[in-house]
Amino acid sequence: MKSTARATRDDRLDRVFGALSHRTRRAMLRRLERQPATVTELAAPFDMSLPAVSKHLRVLESAGLVRRDIDGRIHRCSLEPGPLREADKWLDHYRAFWSDSLDALADYVERGSQ
Amino acid sequence: MKSTARATRDDRLDRVFGALSHRTRRAMLRRLERQPATVTELAAPFDMSLPAVSKHLRVLESAGLVRRDIDGRIHRCSLEPGPLREADKWLDHYRAFWSDSLDALADYVERGSQ
Repeated sequence: MKSTARATRDDRLDRVFGALSHRTRRAMLRRLERQPATVTELAAPFDMSLPAVSKHLRVLESAGLVRRDIDGRIHRCSLEPGPLREADKWLDHYRAFWSDSLDALADYVERGSQ
Repeated sequence: MKSTARATRDDRLDRVFGALSHRTRRAMLRRLERQPATVTELAAPFDMSLPAVSKHLRVLESAGLVRRDIDGRIHRCSLEPGPLREADKWLDHYRAFWSDSLDALADYVERGSQ
């Protein structure tokens, strides 16, 4: 069972980090923070075709970062920030390195001033 | 100048998140936390060819996450955690959402118990 849970977590992290690896998709997430948007509204700031925008949206949806509510011809997209938390947790592990480096720098500066 | 700096930061984030979007590369970074390793040592836990491992390593190097020191035929790889900090900073923005959700949940529970 454990290996299945692990595969699922790895799958989710692969998809979330993959979704974040393109600036257009990061910009779309930032846009959706303010409020939900239609696909056309989301596409407006980008110099790309609607199919290209839809492709990026599908990557975000498959990572669970965007929810699409369909009302007739209107597709309304909302941010689902939950999966970012798992990515954040993976990175959390490395925060000690940055703190360690800052401590090492502080020690170095301190020794130099004595 | 600002737009150039922005493009560079976007490039770095594209590369770092892209590097993290494969479980093998995440596992390699975790392995290198303990200590530097040769390419053969890094490849050992994975059921893949040395060229496949080298390809993943090149992605990590191009994101600035791994440094390779070459001493004759020995390639020694070390972790360079710095670029993860920028990814962490990008995600930092969303922590308010999780805190807000927890606050909302706490409010809900509190109202329910009165």
